[in-house]
Amino acid sequence: MPATDADLIRTLVTPERLREFFAPRSIAVVGASDTSGWARFVAASCQAAGFSGPLIPVHPAHRTVFGRPAVASLRDLAEPVDVAFIMAPAGAVESVLDDAGAAGVRHAIVLAAGYRELGEPGRAAEQRMIARAAAHGITVLGPNCLGFLNAHAAAAPFALTVPPPLLAGPVGIALQSGALASVVLAFAHAHAIGVSTLATMGNEAMIAATDVLEYLIEDDATGVICLFLEQISDPARFARAAERADRAGKPIVVLKAGASPAGREVALAHTGAVAGDDAVVDAVLRQLNVIRVTSIEELLSTAALLGYDRWPAGRRMGVVTASGGACDLIADRAAAEGVEIPEFAPETVAAIDPLIPPFASVRNPLDVTGYFLANRRTSALTAVDHALAAAAADPGLDFVLFTGLTLPQARPDETAAAVLAERAAWLGERIASAPIPVISVAHTCVDVSEYGREVLDRGSIHMLGGIDLGMTALGHALRWLENRGRPQGTVIGGGPARSAAGGAPWSEAAARDLLAGSGVPVVPGELVNSADAAVAAAQRLGLPVVLKVCSAQITHKSDIGGVAVGPRTEEEVRAAYARVTAAGRGVPGARVDGVLVSPMRAGGLELIAGVTVDPTFGPVLAVGLGGVWVEVLGDTSLRVLPVYPGEVKRMLGELRGSALLRGARGSRPADLDALAEAICRLGDAAAALDGSLRALEVNPLWVDGDQVEALDVLIVTADRSKEGP
Amino acid sequence: MPATDADLIRTLVTPERLREFFAPRSIAVVGASDTSGWARFVAASCQAAGFSGPLIPVHPAHRTVFGRPAVASLRDLAEPVDVAFIMAPAGAVESVLDDAGAAGVRHAIVLAAGYRELGEPGRAAEQRMIARAAAHGITVLGPNCLGFLNAHAAAAPFALTVPPPLLAGPVGIALQSGALASVVLAFAHAHAIGVSTLATMGNEAMIAATDVLEYLIEDDATGVICLFLEQISDPARFARAAERADRAGKPIVVLKAGASPAGREVALAHTGAVAGDDAVVDAVLRQLNVIRVTSIEELLSTAALLGYDRWPAGRRMGVVTASGGACDLIADRAAAEGVEIPEFAPETVAAIDPLIPPFASVRNPLDVTGYFLANRRTSALTAVDHALAAAAADPGLDFVLFTGLTLPQARPDETAAAVLAERAAWLGERIASAPIPVISVAHTCVDVSEYGREVLDRGSIHMLGGIDLGMTALGHALRWLENRGRPQGTVIGGGPARSAAGGAPWSEAAARDLLAGSGVPVVPGELVNSADAAVAAAQRLGLPVVLKVCSAQITHKSDIGGVAVGPRTEEEVRAAYARVTAAGRGVPGARVDGVLVSPMRAGGLELIAGVTVDPTFGPVLAVGLGGVWVEVLGDTSLRVLPVYPGEVKRMLGELRGSALLRGARGSRPADLDALAEAICRLGDAAAALDGSLRALEVNPLWVDGDQVEALDVLIVTADRSKEGP
Repeated sequence: MPATDADLIRTLVTPERLREFFAPRSIAVVGASDTSGWARFVAASCQAAGFSGPLIPVHPAHRTVFGRPAVASLRDLAEPVDVAFIMAPAGAVESVLDDAGAAGVRHAIVLAAGYRELGEPGRAAEQRMIARAAAHGITVLGPNCLGFLNAHAAAAPFALTVPPPLLAGPVGIALQSGALASVVLAFAHAHAIGVSTLATMGNEAMIAATDVLEYLIEDDATGVICLFLEQISDPARFARAAERADRAGKPIVVLKAGASPAGREVALAHTGAVAGDDAVVDAVLRQLNVIRVTSIEELLSTAALLGYDRWPAGRRMGVVTASGGACDLIADRAAAEGVEIPEFAPETVAAIDPLIPPFASVRNPLDVTGYFLANRRTSALTAVDHALAAAAADPGLDFVLFTGLTLPQARPDETAAAVLAERAAWLGERIASAPIPVISVAHTCVDVSEYGREVLDRGSIHMLGGIDLGMTALGHALRWLENRGRPQGTVIGGGPARSAAGGAPWSEAAARDLLAGSGVPVVPGELVNSADAAVAAAQRLGLPVVLKVCSAQITHKSDIGGVAVGPRTEEEVRAAYARVTAAGRGVPGARVDGVLVSPMRAGGLELIAGVTVDPTFGPVLAVGLGGVWVEVLGDTSLRVLPVYPGEVKRMLGELRGSALLRGARGSRPADLDALAEAICRLGDAAAALDGSLRALEVNPLWVDGDQVEALDVLIVTADRSKEGP
Repeated sequence: MPATDADLIRTLVTPERLREFFAPRSIAVVGASDTSGWARFVAASCQAAGFSGPLIPVHPAHRTVFGRPAVASLRDLAEPVDVAFIMAPAGAVESVLDDAGAAGVRHAIVLAAGYRELGEPGRAAEQRMIARAAAHGITVLGPNCLGFLNAHAAAAPFALTVPPPLLAGPVGIALQSGALASVVLAFAHAHAIGVSTLATMGNEAMIAATDVLEYLIEDDATGVICLFLEQISDPARFARAAERADRAGKPIVVLKAGASPAGREVALAHTGAVAGDDAVVDAVLRQLNVIRVTSIEELLSTAALLGYDRWPAGRRMGVVTASGGACDLIADRAAAEGVEIPEFAPETVAAIDPLIPPFASVRNPLDVTGYFLANRRTSALTAVDHALAAAAADPGLDFVLFTGLTLPQARPDETAAAVLAERAAWLGERIASAPIPVISVAHTCVDVSEYGREVLDRGSIHMLGGIDLGMTALGHALRWLENRGRPQGTVIGGGPARSAAGGAPWSEAAARDLLAGSGVPVVPGELVNSADAAVAAAQRLGLPVVLKVCSAQITHKSDIGGVAVGPRTEEEVRAAYARVTAAGRGVPGARVDGVLVSPMRAGGLELIAGVTVDPTFGPVLAVGLGGVWVEVLGDTSLRVLPVYPGEVKRMLGELRGSALLRGARGSRPADLDALAEAICRLGDAAAALDGSLRALEVNPLWVDGDQVEALDVLIVTADRSKEGP
C-alpha cells in the first residue's frame, strides 16, 4: 500500500473513530433482501441486543425488507447512518463505498469474501477497495467479516445468530475467525458470561485485531479481553498493547491457532498469513503476561473468572463442598495448578464443627456431606452456606472455592424457588462482604439455565463452568496476577519479515571479540599458526588445553576432527596441533586462520545459549542445558529480545533440568545471577548486529559456581561486513 | 471377617444375584416419611425412571407417606419386595435386616453412614451388620451409599435427584463417591448420554465396585463402563475383570482420585483406604487397557464416543466443518492426540468442489464456509451435508469428524424445525450407511436442549460435547482400540498388603548368582581377598577393571569410597584394592566378604531396572535411563509384574530419553529385544522371591548394541533365608 494511503488509514483508525464505530445509533444494511440470510441475522441480532435506533435496509429493488421500509441507495438516506453494513458482492463494494462517501457515512463493515484470501489478484482488489474507502474518509471493518456487537451500547450489526437475551458484561472479544463468533456467544450465553464488545476481524484490511485490542483496553465496559488469533501481524504494536493492558489491570486471554504444524498450515490456508514458530509465540505471550489457552471453553471460563470474581492475593485456597468426590477432584486439580490447600485455622474448625454430621470431619477441603439436603429445614440456609461464611473468615486463606450452590435446570415449585432465591441473596451478600474472594464453581460444565441465571442474579453471583475448567481458569488467573508488571519495557523488534536463510559465518576470533566486547566472559584463547606457538600458548594458559582449527568456512569443527580436547603434555599438544590443522586443510575451500588454544574446562555444567531470528518476532534467545537436554529432550526456554537478567533467571528456572543448576547430583550450584548476566550480554551482542544477524550461538556456555565462560562461539550474519578486523 | 462369613458372602454376591438386585420390580423404602428428603428423592427417581412396580413406604408411625399407603414394618408386606432401601439410622439397621430376613427380602440398600469411615469401632459395627445380613441371606449395597438406578429396567432406588427424562443408553457407571452420582447424571443428561445401570458403592461392605464392574461386563444393555474410584481394593480381581471387559469389547473408563499426594490424602480421609502410589495406578491401568481420565466431563464424553459411535479402524481423520476457526482448533487438537488429517482423495475433492463458494478451497480439514447459511434453500440439505457424504466415501480415511450440525437451544419456528428434522433424518441415514464411522461433535461443551435431543433422535445421531472434549475422547478411544488384547494374561499379584519397610540386603555375590540363575546376563566378576588375587583376576578378566568392596551391610558402596573404577595397571589395581578394602573396613559393623573385580564397561548406555513392592499392587518393575534421566527427570516407566518382552519394549519406548536407545547422539542403537529379554528375566528373578521380596535393583544395567549386562545388583528380602550359599 502506498505510504500516503497508510498515512490516511492511520487517521481513520484512531481510538476516537473506533469508539464511534463500535457504538452506532443508526445502521444501514446494504444489499438487504428478504431472502438474504445475512440481513436476517443482522435484524435478529439487533433485536436480541435491544437496538433502538434506525435499522435501514438498502436495496435497489425492494421497497420493504423484513417489514421495514427500504431505501434504494445510501444516497437516499435522509441523514447519514453511523454504520453501513455492506453485504454487496465484492465486485459491487467500491460503488457502495462511493454511495456511502456521498451520503456522509463514516463507518462501514464489508461482508464480502473473495479478497486477500484468494492470493495476489484478491490482494490487489482489497487494496483498491480500502484505498477507495480511505479516500472517502470511511473506516472499514473487514472485508470477509461478520460485523460486531456491543452489548452495553445495545448495537449489533452482526451477521450471525445471537442467543437471546444478549447479556452485557465485562468480556471484550476479538476474533480472527468470524464463524467462531456464534460458537463463542453460545458458550458465553450458556454460562451467563456477559460480553462488552465482540468484533469479527475478517481480513483486517484497515482495522486490525490490535486496533480492537487497544479499543477494548480503553473501553470502560471491558474488564478482560479474549482474542482468537490465527496470526499476530504486528508484534511490536501487540507488545505495546499488552503492556498497556497489564498496567490497566485488564487481562488478555488468547486462543492462538497453529500450535501444531498441521494447525499452522490450516491457519495459513484460511488467512494467507504465515504464523511464526509456535514455541516463539508461546514465549512471546508468556513474556507479555498474556494468558494462552487451548479451547473456547477455557478462553471464556478464564475470562469469566477474571472478569467477575474478586482477585485472590495468593495461592492458599479453602474449599467448601457437599461432596467427598468433589473434594478429591479439586485436590488433584489444585496440585496440578500449584494451588495450596492449607489446614483451616482452629477458629474455622470450631465454627464449622457443629454444622456437619458427627461422622464427618472438618478439614480443608471440606465436605459437609449431603446429609443436610435430606432434611426439611426451617431456614433456607444449609450447612454448606454457614461453612462457607466460616471459611471465608479464615485468616490463613487467600480465597475460597465453593461448590455448594447447585442450580436446578428447570424451575422448581414456588416454595423451593423462594428458598433458593433467599439462599442466593444471602450467599451473594456474604460473598460480596467476605474478607477474601469466594469463587463459585459448578461441578461440571453444564449450562446455566434461564432459571439458574435468575437465581445467580439474585446474589450477583457468577458461577464457573465446572471443577475442571474452573481450576484451569484459576491456575491462569493466579499466574497472571503473579506476573503483573512483567511485560514492562518489553519491546519486540518485529519489523518486516526477514529471511533467515543463507548468511556468512564469522571467524571464531571475530566472534569471540564481539562477545567479549559486549561483556560476555569468553574463555581465554590464543590463535596460533605453528606447533611451537601452540605449545607456548598452552604453557601460558595452563595444561590441559583444547585446540580448535579456526576457519570461517568450518562451522562444525568437531564433525571433521578439527577439535582436540585435553592434551596434557607438550608432546600431546604438538600431535593435536598436527591433527586439527590436517583436518582443517582437508576441507575443500576452507581458509584456515590458525588454531585456537584454550585452557580445558572440566566439571561444572555446559549450557547452550543462542539467538536466531524469527520471521514474525525478530531475534529470539534460546537457552538450554547441553547434551541430551537439548539434543534428546529439546529442553530450551525461549524469549524474544531484549531480555533483562530477571527474565533470564526465569528462563533458567523453566528448564526441566534446572535442578542441575541448583546443584542437584552433587555439583556446585551455579551462580544464577552471573549466568543470567552473561546471557543478557550475549543477547545485547546479538541485538547490536541488528538486521544483519542470522544466528549467534554459544555452545557450550560453561558454568561452574560463579565462573561463567563462553567456550565456543558461532556468529552468522547476512554478509561479513559487520565482522571485525 | 471370619472365613465362614466371607464364604457366605461369596454366595450372596454372584452374577445372578446382582442381575436380580439391579432389576427390581418392587421396592420398599424403610424409614420413609414425608419429611425425609432421601425418601422423596427415591420416589422422584422412580418416577423419572418410569418405575411401574410397587414402591412401598415402610414406617412405624405413618399410615401414608408421599401419598402412598405405608406399612409399619417389612414383616407386614403381603409379599417380599425385590429390594429394600433401608434409610434407618445405623443403630437401627440390624433390626430392619431382621425384619427383611423374616419377610423374605433378599436385597437391601443401606443408606446410613457412621460405619467404617469412623475408624475401628465403625468397622466392627459394619462387620456385625453385614454378618447379620449374610445370616439372613440378604445381599447388601452400601452402607453409606445412595442406591442405584437401572434405566433399561426402569428402576431407581436412588436417593438423589435424577434430571428427567432419564435416558436409557449404553453407559454403565459405578461410583465410589455417591454425591457425584447426581453430578454425573446431570452432565449425562445435558449431553443426551444414556445410562444403563448407575450404582453408588458406599463402603462396599458386601458388594464391591469390582462386583458391579463384573455385572456391567455381563449386562447386555451396557456397552461401555465408567468408574469413579478412590481406591482399587482387590487389584487381582480388577485385573481379571479388565481383561474380560477388553475381550468382550466393553471399554472401561476410569476417573481415579488421588493423582496427587494431596488428592490421595483427601481420598484417604473419605474412605479410610490407602491408595497406592499414583504412578503405579497409572501403570496398572495402562497395562490393563483401561482408559484413565481426569474429569467427569472427560469420563462421560469418552464413554459416549465409545458407546454411541462406530469405532474407527485407524487414525486417518477427515474433517468437515463450516468454520475455518473450527478447522484450526481441530487440527491443533488432532496433532496433540496423534490423529492424522491426510489429503482428500481426488474423487472426494471433485465431489466437494461444486458445493463450496469459489473463494474457498477443498482441503482436509474442510471448511465449506458459512455462506450456505445465508441463502434460502429449496432443499433442507446444505453444502456441509453433501460434503460429509462425499468425505465419508473417501477411501483414504478411517473416519470423519463432523461439526456441521448446529443445534439451536430453543425450538425455532415450524418451518425451520421441519427443515432441521428432515436434515437430521437424512444425515442420520447417511451416517448409519457410511463406509466409515462419522463422529458428530458440537463446537463447545454446551448442553443439548430438549429440542436438540429430539432433532438428534430423528437421525439416531449422538453428538459429542465440544471439539476439545471430543478430541480428547477420540484420542482415548483410538489408544484403547489399538491396545485391545494387551491385558491378556496380566495377572496382578495383589494379595494382602505387605510392609515394604526394613528387610535384609543380600551380599552382592548371592544377588549376582540369583540374577544369573534367572538368565539375566551379569558382568563377569571374581570375588578376591588379597591384592595379589585382585591382580590375577584383573589380568584374567582384562584391564581396565572395576573393584568393589563386597559386604551385605554396605549397600551404597560408592558413597563410602568402596568402588574403584578404571585401574589400568597392576600397580593401580593394588592401590585400588587397598583403597576399597580400607573403605569397607571403616564401616562399623560391616562384615567384608571380599572385593569383586569386574572388567570395566565403557561406551554404550546405562539403564536402571528394579522391582519394588507396592502395598496394593505387589511387585512393580521400574525401568529408566541412568544419570540425570532418573535423578533429575524421574523418567521411569512402571509395570506390575509379570511382564513379557513386548510390554518391556513398550516401557522402553515410553521413556523420554528413548531416542538414545535408538542411537540418537551417534551411539550404537541398543538391541531392544536383548534388553527387554534381560529385563523380563530380572522380573522373573524378583517374582521367584515371592512374598519375601522387598527390592531388587540393577544399577547400572549396561547396554551397548546387543551386549547387555547387569553391572551392579542389589537385593533386599524380608530376611536372608532365601539368600543362596
